[in-house]
Amino acid sequence: MKNMLDREIPDYIEGYGKVKPFNGVTANYGVKTRSSVKLISVKSGSNKLLSSIGEVLDRLEIKDGMTISFHHHLRNGDFILNNVMYEIAKRGIKDIRVAASSIFPIHEPLVEYMKNGVVTGIVTDYMSGPVAEAVSKGYLKTPAIMMTHGGRARAIESGDLHIDVAFIAAPTSDDYGNINGVSGSSACGSLGYAVSDAQYADKVVAVTDNLVSYPACPIEISQEYVDYVVKVDSIGNPAGIVSGTTKITKDPVGLKIAQMAAGVMDIAGYVKNGMSFQTGAGGTSLAVAAELEKMMKERNIVGSFASGGITGYISNMLDEGLFKNLFDVQCFDLKAVESYRENCRHQGMSGSMYGNLANKGAVVNKLDVMILGATEVDVNFNVNVTTSSSGIIMGGAGGHSDTAAGAKLSIVVTNLVKGRLPIVKDTVTTVTTPGESIDVVVTERGIAVNPKRKDLMEKLRESNLPITTIEELKNTAERIAGKGEKLKFSNNIVAVVEYRDGTVIDVVRKPLN
Amino acid sequence: MKNMLDREIPDYIEGYGKVKPFNGVTANYGVKTRSSVKLISVKSGSNKLLSSIGEVLDRLEIKDGMTISFHHHLRNGDFILNNVMYEIAKRGIKDIRVAASSIFPIHEPLVEYMKNGVVTGIVTDYMSGPVAEAVSKGYLKTPAIMMTHGGRARAIESGDLHIDVAFIAAPTSDDYGNINGVSGSSACGSLGYAVSDAQYADKVVAVTDNLVSYPACPIEISQEYVDYVVKVDSIGNPAGIVSGTTKITKDPVGLKIAQMAAGVMDIAGYVKNGMSFQTGAGGTSLAVAAELEKMMKERNIVGSFASGGITGYISNMLDEGLFKNLFDVQCFDLKAVESYRENCRHQGMSGSMYGNLANKGAVVNKLDVMILGATEVDVNFNVNVTTSSSGIIMGGAGGHSDTAAGAKLSIVVTNLVKGRLPIVKDTVTTVTTPGESIDVVVTERGIAVNPKRKDLMEKLRESNLPITTIEELKNTAERIAGKGEKLKFSNNIVAVVEYRDGTVIDVVRKPLN
Repeated sequence: MKNMLDREIPDYIEGYGKVKPFNGVTANYGVKTRSSVKLISVKSGSNKLLSSIGEVLDRLEIKDGMTISFHHHLRNGDFILNNVMYEIAKRGIKDIRVAASSIFPIHEPLVEYMKNGVVTGIVTDYMSGPVAEAVSKGYLKTPAIMMTHGGRARAIESGDLHIDVAFIAAPTSDDYGNINGVSGSSACGSLGYAVSDAQYADKVVAVTDNLVSYPACPIEISQEYVDYVVKVDSIGNPAGIVSGTTKITKDPVGLKIAQMAAGVMDIAGYVKNGMSFQTGAGGTSLAVAAELEKMMKERNIVGSFASGGITGYISNMLDEGLFKNLFDVQCFDLKAVESYRENCRHQGMSGSMYGNLANKGAVVNKLDVMILGATEVDVNFNVNVTTSSSGIIMGGAGGHSDTAAGAKLSIVVTNLVKGRLPIVKDTVTTVTTPGESIDVVVTERGIAVNPKRKDLMEKLRESNLPITTIEELKNTAERIAGKGEKLKFSNNIVAVVEYRDGTVIDVVRKPLN
Repeated sequence: MKNMLDREIPDYIEGYGKVKPFNGVTANYGVKTRSSVKLISVKSGSNKLLSSIGEVLDRLEIKDGMTISFHHHLRNGDFILNNVMYEIAKRGIKDIRVAASSIFPIHEPLVEYMKNGVVTGIVTDYMSGPVAEAVSKGYLKTPAIMMTHGGRARAIESGDLHIDVAFIAAPTSDDYGNINGVSGSSACGSLGYAVSDAQYADKVVAVTDNLVSYPACPIEISQEYVDYVVKVDSIGNPAGIVSGTTKITKDPVGLKIAQMAAGVMDIAGYVKNGMSFQTGAGGTSLAVAAELEKMMKERNIVGSFASGGITGYISNMLDEGLFKNLFDVQCFDLKAVESYRENCRHQGMSGSMYGNLANKGAVVNKLDVMILGATEVDVNFNVNVTTSSSGIIMGGAGGHSDTAAGAKLSIVVTNLVKGRLPIVKDTVTTVTTPGESIDVVVTERGIAVNPKRKDLMEKLRESNLPITTIEELKNTAERIAGKGEKLKFSNNIVAVVEYRDGTVIDVVRKPLN
């Protein structure tokens, strides 16, 4: 079977199940269901506070085959996933499915659990490092399921991803499970991605290293949703949780691309009062924010909101009055955490509010401009941020496909050639985000506009910007760097890439060399 | 059939259904279900903003027999219930069930709709004024269902109370349905009781007179839950929404009772660091807060939280540092609204977080001391706040039963005789709150301790407080005011009083004269 993007995908994938093929960005709006939840009510006088993760596991009767969820706001400083899985492994439990919103190099111990059968399934929105490599090598018994951030919220809320136990790394919690991420030595800011887990998992455990007297303040996740609270010495390594600062690129090529992207936004007519904007934390993406900042200041423009994972750079734009509000699902650096704690206009949002297509309107729907990265782009504007050019998993959609689908103008910024490899190609190794939702690709060698955006094309053609076609970009890239070696893959599917609506947009097969 | 409180209740009530009899305060904890929800997902570019309530009704295809919900934060200034019902009546729609968290005198137009069959059912936590009187007279086709505030959240979340359309009076909203109650000319503060409606109704409509540019800030109810937004000229009369100030009683009897109640709290050992406290907005209840304030200041005591409907008086105690936090489900006056808007330690809570026994722990569970009012108390400590001594509905549980069940110490403060009627009696006209959850009754003629609280009895007997028995209080009341006339009722059940767990604790029959 081929889906509408011409990706070869079986009807049925062993260890995943029946495939619903991707059928277009807006194919699956309509009647949706938020799932029912069973819980045990807690009466006055009951105690939720337990003394160790071991005690929690005993109390919860963790069994073979369960799905255990984690959120990734502690990023590469997270101790909770490893500590919980260590205790689970110690009990001889097998066949666990780990549903972590993202997986980082620190989670390397999972590799051993994949090898010895403690972990046989992974559901995640992003993974990099040893776990991603091990999945690519086929160490996981079932294909990893790779979702988008909004898709994860959708899957959890709809019941497609049923979580037996959610462990919530809580930088601050009281003894009744009121949680926030703004205080404590492991402060990470917004806890947006943990919200669906808390609301829909069968059992919810808050793990904190900063147990405060009742009630915690502010409250990001409420006691209504939490079964147990456990105090540990440390939930994470602050150095890995947030970088001290996120910085704009100094690379002249990156800066040139950023200028061109800002020009596209401007000429397309989106740089105006009330505008909304999102960009990633990468150096070039941040450079686009810097270009936008200049324009907004020069013209006294005030935007409505910036959103997404939030950096100090964007927080500064809030402080400067360039945006009225921020919507924050995850803080990328210390300045963002501080801003989220201190400035009420720096508002939190859940992963569902951010990007779930199955609710009554996500924040991405209100986005004017989205700046996106890419590992590869194909001539149909399909983007890969899941696998490297050698076919190894090194990322995942995160909010990429969600924001691309929602925003009025989705701009991919990328060098045309990276590490001697062409980035614009005939076909991408893996489709993460469908070209249908990408409007413009900006490279240092030219700007390609998606032909379906005739309106944009007309405006941009009249400008001084170096407008070209995606085919020309591909040809230029190939002239510089060659076509790139044709990768060979086995038939072994190591990961299933779900679009935000739960359809399968692509699969990742095990590379042959 | 008689329930465990010896109240005569049929097994089956026409227009209500099969009766689950009340079976004790803690009989119905355990496995609970939060219901699934069907919704229509909203895609990028869709418009939620409609121009009139009429247009909303057309869009929603409102039909005979639907359940339409409202929240009561605009109290006796609310225009929304009347305006929506006017439009529904105009369309010739019949047989509507109005699920309003409370009903006030301003809602008098409902009486006509009850008479002409537009409205045939009412579900509410509290009603006073013409609608309550009309229900008592039997004008409503089916018995009104009277819930507690926590019970309403439970019923909505569990699916027991299925809402077809929820109308949310929104002092501030943006065009995508992000709502708050803190800004605008109809600002009412916390929107706690509207949260379950927004989360579980089939359709949710925000009605606002203060449409702000996207995004509203802060956000109390999120765009994720709202289908439509409609802008109207005015959602309410500010004079009826919040009183300018709520004041302590000047009546010497009330002040004496308050002093005695404060003495009970103190001797019982609850006046200490970390204490939590709730009291109503009545003059005597507020006087208890004033007595507590004195003690806390004298002894440098800092409490953890005060909760409930919040008055300016309690907000001042937060400002003075006497409580670390407030939990606010509804603001009673302008000072409370201002405090809720400006002070992040004045935290909001939903009706479910406040008092729902079917979640993983409500705030009432964390209450040390609750000060309650009463219309009648019987010798088994059962309290009536639903009907007057003449059997007419003039109130309802609100949070009475929820807080009584949750708090470690529930104190009823009341004059022993009011308007020449004895308040402590052999049996109450209607049981709202079971005596099992009432610990102490404080009157100007003495203090009765529930015999099941032997621990309290021992402590209080050693004090100078005038401890007596509930029977002695009853005898004294009868000596002063006589036994009161025995009321006569028809067999016609005009209201069913549900306990917070959905069991039937009592029924209200139509008085015969």
